[in-house]
Amino acid sequence: MAKKKLNVGMIGYGFMGRTHSNAFRKVGNFFDLDYQPVLKAICGRTETGVKAFADKWGYESVETDWRKMIDRKDIDIIDICTPNDSHMEIAIAAAQAGKMIMCEKPLARTGAEGEKMVAAVEGARVANSVWYNYRRVPAVTMAKQLIDEGRLGKIFHYRAKFLQDWTISADLPQGGTGLWRLDAAAAGSGVTGDLLAHCIDTAIWLNGSVDSVTAMTETFIKERKHNLTGKVEKVGIDDACAFLARFDNGSLATFESTRYARGHKALYTLEINGEHASIAWDLHDLHRLQWFDHRDESKLRGWKSIHVTDGDQPYMKNWWVPGLQIGYEHTFVHQVADFLEGVANNKPTTPSFREALETQYICDAVLDSAKTGKWTEVKSLG
Amino acid sequence: MAKKKLNVGMIGYGFMGRTHSNAFRKVGNFFDLDYQPVLKAICGRTETGVKAFADKWGYESVETDWRKMIDRKDIDIIDICTPNDSHMEIAIAAAQAGKMIMCEKPLARTGAEGEKMVAAVEGARVANSVWYNYRRVPAVTMAKQLIDEGRLGKIFHYRAKFLQDWTISADLPQGGTGLWRLDAAAAGSGVTGDLLAHCIDTAIWLNGSVDSVTAMTETFIKERKHNLTGKVEKVGIDDACAFLARFDNGSLATFESTRYARGHKALYTLEINGEHASIAWDLHDLHRLQWFDHRDESKLRGWKSIHVTDGDQPYMKNWWVPGLQIGYEHTFVHQVADFLEGVANNKPTTPSFREALETQYICDAVLDSAKTGKWTEVKSLG
Amino acid sequence: MAKKKLNVGMIGYGFMGRTHSNAFRKVGNFFDLDYQPVLKAICGRTETGVKAFADKWGYESVETDWRKMIDRKDIDIIDICTPNDSHMEIAIAAAQAGKMIMCEKPLARTGAEGEKMVAAVEGARVANSVWYNYRRVPAVTMAKQLIDEGRLGKIFHYRAKFLQDWTISADLPQGGTGLWRLDAAAAGSGVTGDLLAHCIDTAIWLNGSVDSVTAMTETFIKERKHNLTGKVEKVGIDDACAFLARFDNGSLATFESTRYARGHKALYTLEINGEHASIAWDLHDLHRLQWFDHRDESKLRGWKSIHVTDGDQPYMKNWWVPGLQIGYEHTFVHQVADFLEGVANNKPTTPSFREALETQYICDAVLDSAKTGKWTEVKSLG
Amino acid sequence: MAKKKLNVGMIGYGFMGRTHSNAFRKVGNFFDLDYQPVLKAICGRTETGVKAFADKWGYESVETDWRKMIDRKDIDIIDICTPNDSHMEIAIAAAQAGKMIMCEKPLARTGAEGEKMVAAVEGARVANSVWYNYRRVPAVTMAKQLIDEGRLGKIFHYRAKFLQDWTISADLPQGGTGLWRLDAAAAGSGVTGDLLAHCIDTAIWLNGSVDSVTAMTETFIKERKHNLTGKVEKVGIDDACAFLARFDNGSLATFESTRYARGHKALYTLEINGEHASIAWDLHDLHRLQWFDHRDESKLRGWKSIHVTDGDQPYMKNWWVPGLQIGYEHTFVHQVADFLEGVANNKPTTPSFREALETQYICDAVLDSAKTGKWTEVKSLG
Repeated sequence: MAKKKLNVGMIGYGFMGRTHSNAFRKVGNFFDLDYQPVLKAICGRTETGVKAFADKWGYESVETDWRKMIDRKDIDIIDICTPNDSHMEIAIAAAQAGKMIMCEKPLARTGAEGEKMVAAVEGARVANSVWYNYRRVPAVTMAKQLIDEGRLGKIFHYRAKFLQDWTISADLPQGGTGLWRLDAAAAGSGVTGDLLAHCIDTAIWLNGSVDSVTAMTETFIKERKHNLTGKVEKVGIDDACAFLARFDNGSLATFESTRYARGHKALYTLEINGEHASIAWDLHDLHRLQWFDHRDESKLRGWKSIHVTDGDQPYMKNWWVPGLQIGYEHTFVHQVADFLEGVANNKPTTPSFREALETQYICDAVLDSAKTGKWTEVKSLG
Repeated sequence: MAKKKLNVGMIGYGFMGRTHSNAFRKVGNFFDLDYQPVLKAICGRTETGVKAFADKWGYESVETDWRKMIDRKDIDIIDICTPNDSHMEIAIAAAQAGKMIMCEKPLARTGAEGEKMVAAVEGARVANSVWYNYRRVPAVTMAKQLIDEGRLGKIFHYRAKFLQDWTISADLPQGGTGLWRLDAAAAGSGVTGDLLAHCIDTAIWLNGSVDSVTAMTETFIKERKHNLTGKVEKVGIDDACAFLARFDNGSLATFESTRYARGHKALYTLEINGEHASIAWDLHDLHRLQWFDHRDESKLRGWKSIHVTDGDQPYMKNWWVPGLQIGYEHTFVHQVADFLEGVANNKPTTPSFREALETQYICDAVLDSAKTGKWTEVKSLG
Repeated sequence: MAKKKLNVGMIGYGFMGRTHSNAFRKVGNFFDLDYQPVLKAICGRTETGVKAFADKWGYESVETDWRKMIDRKDIDIIDICTPNDSHMEIAIAAAQAGKMIMCEKPLARTGAEGEKMVAAVEGARVANSVWYNYRRVPAVTMAKQLIDEGRLGKIFHYRAKFLQDWTISADLPQGGTGLWRLDAAAAGSGVTGDLLAHCIDTAIWLNGSVDSVTAMTETFIKERKHNLTGKVEKVGIDDACAFLARFDNGSLATFESTRYARGHKALYTLEINGEHASIAWDLHDLHRLQWFDHRDESKLRGWKSIHVTDGDQPYMKNWWVPGLQIGYEHTFVHQVADFLEGVANNKPTTPSFREALETQYICDAVLDSAKTGKWTEVKSLG
Repeated sequence: MAKKKLNVGMIGYGFMGRTHSNAFRKVGNFFDLDYQPVLKAICGRTETGVKAFADKWGYESVETDWRKMIDRKDIDIIDICTPNDSHMEIAIAAAQAGKMIMCEKPLARTGAEGEKMVAAVEGARVANSVWYNYRRVPAVTMAKQLIDEGRLGKIFHYRAKFLQDWTISADLPQGGTGLWRLDAAAAGSGVTGDLLAHCIDTAIWLNGSVDSVTAMTETFIKERKHNLTGKVEKVGIDDACAFLARFDNGSLATFESTRYARGHKALYTLEINGEHASIAWDLHDLHRLQWFDHRDESKLRGWKSIHVTDGDQPYMKNWWVPGLQIGYEHTFVHQVADFLEGVANNKPTTPSFREALETQYICDAVLDSAKTGKWTEVKSLG
């Protein structure tokens, strides 16, 4: 049966442009879906760069002005891969043009921006989703299933960390290609919006809403050369952020992120302790889930390392055979697969813009608390 | 050469009574020291119990009133192994009697109690030390050496957890033998004084003083039967506690402890990230130290698992041969060895009562912050 | 610059058909190469099946007779993905037709078959390579580099295992789609040709030629229903095989493979111990290399777990950023990339048919020794 | 109730003299037993050395001639801690004198020697046991229980290794104090009798008798200075040994030991794969047992790391609380506890001399096969 085509127009072609393009290209080889995405157009400001990217990935056309992309009738899905400071403007325009939207995380720089984006997509009733890809690591998806089945019982504790070490050198500049994450104007915040947003997104998915937080942030290197201005400028982002939280379900949580933790490249870890069982996972061995079940026979209790590569584990029947790992890139393929299935069934794909707004509210509360030194309530989604 | 004898009078003979007795008995078999401890007297309120203990461990005599023990001329060292609520009274009396004092941790229930104890031992100029035994896990001692040698460079992050799961059942009573740790009157606090005190003691040893904290605590089970009264009573202790901290050296820290973390029996973990290197350790595999050194050749960087069992690693030349583990009990033997060496050389044994008072001040600030919801400065040792 | 096209004609479309197709499709997105493979034709006996596969993967045409595929002028590369019993016939025909050949491992069922294949490709001077994909796990490739740089010094020991558990059930039939690996006629042997061939290929690459072996094999389940005949038939394959070996360089080795090791899905492990350093690796965490260097400072020696995801580690600059894993499928992409680079530079791609023949000789010696019970010399490549 | 005393006369006071003395001294503090061992006499050839040892450990008397020790009426148990070449003579004399005998492993240098020892102790009907201490690592004892309960079902595979790296330097001499293990005359063999004997003892305990073996050995450094003669002499021991084995129960096994495996101090590992479950253990983390149970729910299957420190796990109720490790030395305490209980109940303590003779027969077959290059049947215990 011939598949229906969905034309993708991608805006931005940096690191995330590659992960998304790969996902759109591969999904049909591994998943049986009604829809087949087509790499229709790619947009970037530098013509030579965008053309090279189009060549490499097989995009049919290029644009250098994102507004033109949105105007094109032959584009069904706008995929936003630009730095955070342009998410809002592009998303609102795309919604107004009736496009489906897949937006790279975080949704926006602030909750206020996010609210406008939610209003736009909900007003236009267009399909929308945010690329919080770690929800779709099979081990994480399985954690979600185990929790939803009630296997952990009452939850007492949640803890998450996202540790990196790539900005320790004082010689690293801020701003510009590849380094906009160090520029507060482009990124909105530092590790909070970049890394903790991932931890928070997973946490609210697994453990529900957060009631309140108390946080601290630090900028270890106060000034860095700015690549765009060429001058040494004050660093506006948070290099590190840690916060305590209370969830609505009564559980206690600790969250921490930094780019100053020697030895950790991208170590996102999470652990959740329930009355009956506990779960742990980390991104450096993303194909494993750690599972402890207190209902096991007493003398044989222990943490089990589950190699999540079997056909009865989430997403894995689409890949290889038991024992053979998938990696980072596959989480994006899963997101596309779910999005296309959502389109086919007229169902939203989690996380929607609205769900991603909740993460934004928590980030706002965290950054606010870090300034005031006080416990801060998280704004309700309403 | 004949060794000089030091007569030990131990007060209390519960779990810690066993670890200390074992340490005094073994130390001479493995360490070459000028002094040989003698298990002279053991004191407990129940005569049959204390006699059975004396039999088992070879104590020469028993007492049922600790004041009598302190009055005895033949006792050189008073070892305090009682619940926390009697530490102060015993220690002050022992100091006044001119005895050397080894006191089980935490020093006291509060900083205020601790101050009086410090005043007593310093006024009497008696040798004094607190059994924060985890400083003397060889891997932890080696961490201290590496830090003191400057190998980590500037410290950015410290994190510690002490997770247990033994009080999740609502049927567990509070108070009485073996359960005084759940009774706020006897223990002073819950996990803060029992478990976090260990984490804090190690932290200030490795990373210096703490400037300020913000904390949260929780008591998940609000009422439990009290073993001494037989009635259901309000639970006064903290079941869980987490706090953020800023150290004087500018580093950021997270601390957490709970007795509600399924899957963890006694998982004390610590990690410290410096500019050049990072260290991690956990109590469940206490014979290993995790070490990451950024100065390693780039493509060969990674976390190294060091099996701390070689003769050039702290304390290990006194035990077996490379590859053969020691365990928990040996940390107490090391403390006795160091104490006796301190006596021989007229040097204090770390942590002294004064050093342990700093931990008390931090616990006070933590519990205070948990009540007020505010960042709280830690009282200075002055 | 426009890339030169190379048209791929793939024969067989089972599990390996998928891994190879994916590799051909992806390689151009991630590697800068002069040649771009084109999925020109796919061949299989069942027309509906092969058409569905062609649809899914974007093959331009289908064939149901492999001889027709070989006759086609528009095919540059013949990729052999069929069961082992047809490798020889197809490869010889393809060589005679002047096609480049990529052949799935093992090269053949026996050394005798392999010799004819080597003669054919060398006589025809066509590019040839065998898909021993595990050479191109970045961690394994890095192991090769470290060994070749002399960092291990004299090698004393090599050990490898490949453990699975999928054939323990006596109800599992032999033969037919997906189960030809249990049919001696189709597969040639059991774990020896299927799994140990991988271990041997890596071993001779890393550690040089094998002098002699002594082996044992076992078939735990003696009879199974045959899917093609419908009858219960004697099982002709080895369920398990272990052998001792002496390498030409004087090192000693143990090899073992089985499909009866509960708990292991596809646990290929290897370890190599040299005078100065040791290396270990396993397929269940293929993105990590374990490294021990005795030249490290004595008290800090230990096994280092290297997360092989950095740009200065083999192949990794073509993928994501440090900390983000690739998986099983990428080893095939690497093989295609290297093959295409070999074509561009007129250089052979390791392992060539000749190199793969050495593995065949070792398998022959192993199976022979298992029958005779004697140490058996490995036939020399000459 | 007063305990009955059993006077120990220990012969030899090297490394094993320390482990045994410690065990005798500690056992009464941790185990409730009818008998209390008394460190009555220690025997060694060098008077100053033996006196210093007696001082350190509290032996009541010393001897410098082992025959005098055996003649003493006040000695109940002779504990043999001398190098292997004197085990036979001492044991036979002790048996003839009616002493109970605890003999350090291996029982003897050869099966022929062992047979005479078995005849002696069985003829004299004296209690006898060999210190194969690793049977009494709690995790290993638990493995035994799990196997005996039938939880693994039919056993398919057994594999064991004992890897060290302490003799790689060519400068290391052979012979004399601390180095008699490198002297074939004193030790009988190299790694086979020293390390593989441990692996074999555990294996036959867990998995039953061995039918036949094929082996290879190697001596990497052919000549070393001999400490006793001062001359460079041919090295007579095996530096490395590997063998394949078939057990009587139909399972296949691989065994390997070497002192040339860089990175391994004393890495004794074992794994056993059964129809339903698998077990793995290693000496470098001796407090953990790895357990895989195929009967677990399919998607939650995985290897469980059991921290063997709970009261319902073997021997552990006698030590500390859950989560707190014991180490190497405790295995000897367990052996003494079991021996004393055996004496009290008039039951043999495993492994008896007879059981240890089976290990000797296997070592003989291994060394024989290494010479002949043939599969060799293991002599039956009869």
